Amino acid sequence: MNKTLLVAGSIAFDSLKTRAGSRDEILGGAATYISIAASYFSKVNLVAVVGKNDFPKECSNLLKKHNIDLTGLEFADGRTFRWQGEYADDFSTRQTLGTELGVFEKFDPKIPEEYIGPQILLLGNISPSVQLKVLERAKGTPFVITDTMNLWMDIALDDLKKIISKSNLLVINDEEAFQLSKKQQLITAAKDILKLGPEFLIIKRGEHGAFLFTAKDTFYSPAILLEDVIDPTGAGDSFAGGLAGYLAKTGATDFTTIKTAMLYGTAIASATCEGFGTEKTITLTNDEIESRVAKLKALVSLH
Amino acid sequence: MNKTLLVAGSIAFDSLKTRAGSRDEILGGAATYISIAASYFSKVNLVAVVGKNDFPKECSNLLKKHNIDLTGLEFADGRTFRWQGEYADDFSTRQTLGTELGVFEKFDPKIPEEYIGPQILLLGNISPSVQLKVLERAKGTPFVITDTMNLWMDIALDDLKKIISKSNLLVINDEEAFQLSKKQQLITAAKDILKLGPEFLIIKRGEHGAFLFTAKDTFYSPAILLEDVIDPTGAGDSFAGGLAGYLAKTGATDFTTIKTAMLYGTAIASATCEGFGTEKTITLTNDEIESRVAKLKALVSLH
Repeated sequence: MNKTLLVAGSIAFDSLKTRAGSRDEILGGAATYISIAASYFSKVNLVAVVGKNDFPKECSNLLKKHNIDLTGLEFADGRTFRWQGEYADDFSTRQTLGTELGVFEKFDPKIPEEYIGPQILLLGNISPSVQLKVLERAKGTPFVITDTMNLWMDIALDDLKKIISKSNLLVINDEEAFQLSKKQQLITAAKDILKLGPEFLIIKRGEHGAFLFTAKDTFYSPAILLEDVIDPTGAGDSFAGGLAGYLAKTGATDFTTIKTAMLYGTAIASATCEGFGTEKTITLTNDEIESRVAKLKALVSLH
Repeated sequence: MNKTLLVAGSIAFDSLKTRAGSRDEILGGAATYISIAASYFSKVNLVAVVGKNDFPKECSNLLKKHNIDLTGLEFADGRTFRWQGEYADDFSTRQTLGTELGVFEKFDPKIPEEYIGPQILLLGNISPSVQLKVLERAKGTPFVITDTMNLWMDIALDDLKKIISKSNLLVINDEEAFQLSKKQQLITAAKDILKLGPEFLIIKRGEHGAFLFTAKDTFYSPAILLEDVIDPTGAGDSFAGGLAGYLAKTGATDFTTIKTAMLYGTAIASATCEGFGTEKTITLTNDEIESRVAKLKALVSLH
């Protein structure tokens, strides 16, 4: 039985430079990647904000074409959020060259009547206080998936802990897990973070795959080896979006289903890295997704 | 049907410092770790050299107790090989503080009559010219497993390529694979290295597991998440030794058997990290090894 999926997060114009080339002001932002990835499995209700005068119709149309409902997309006075970044040649680090919050600075999330009571709520990486507002205003008792980043650990730790305690599944990367727990080993970090409240914790390790932890169990999904990486921007968001979309489609949120959902998230994340921005992600077919999932299963098969 | 296993490599006294403490002049060296790891599955014939006057009987006894035949252990004039190293707190890098080659400098490997014609030959990380001598003098047509390091890529690339071309399975880490292939992605690096001759290539990624490549297939074994790391010295050697021992025990060297062998190698390598030197490795039981392998299988199970 399908579940309804509500996604909240940022929409941005990204200017990117990688060893493969560069792009100027292309559609990006966590909510964009999450929604497009999730759209391969489920209808998506989107809560986000863009600039009234600089967000082109083509971008709205792209999202609409992907089964993404834009009733909750606010067009506000001001400019759309912009981010500029450059990646090291081996993609091990990236440098932020510029950030212009624009309409995002005063984002006060509004939940349309028809979005009320979502069954799955994915809170993309935005300030914990805004995540808390979305959760409160969306009402009901959704399965809450929360993404975040180290910035919020530095400047909004109390609110961050509050939203983590209300989350069912927290999705962060390994550096963030070490910072949040002040532990040096992944498994001890995971144990500490689970004590903050969530039943499930996913720790992403980029090209090294991702771990799923509960108080009792651990699961590991490898990543897909890529012949070439073009631009990893949004890969983590695509992972979370694909995962949430798969849960919405199957209607289950237990440990076993989340394991398989991670493979689907990984499949879409791998495609995201193969093009700038959403270039490659938007071209996926169900067959291509299934073929990537089959590859992941074969990778660890002993037979 | 068991196969005979011949191991050649270094025996050393290591002085180590990690965040967990330090040890002075403890038994180490690739051949030590390889042989002890392999001994859990198979008898080991060892070819190595130590100092006539400084290698204590307790060290010989420790190896003998582990089903390791010392007929091929040469006691030469001079001092046993010594290495001093210190690890960064997160174990991501290590610094060599001192190396004293001692008797290892003029090591001219001698193969006892009863070792001639091994079925599996594991060449630990020593100079490629010595590896070539061992291979030639051991005679027969063994399944050759070769380990190496970046030093030999810098100073002995021609001989290294020669021994790789004569190897059935090359075992290196990711940095070495990138250096050897001059490629930036693991899978393109693997394709290039396989062209040098070996049918099988394992690329180790430390705590991130290990990949097995053939021209057609890829397999991935994760690592075991450790609550604490004490000293990773010899983990890669324990991995190769456990793997080779498992192959010797089962008597098979096909892709499917090597996959399972990697889990056994990983199981022993994980134990090696949990103590200084061989402290923890020598205490293993078959039950503990099986329990670690079961953990690795469960880690990637979707059920």
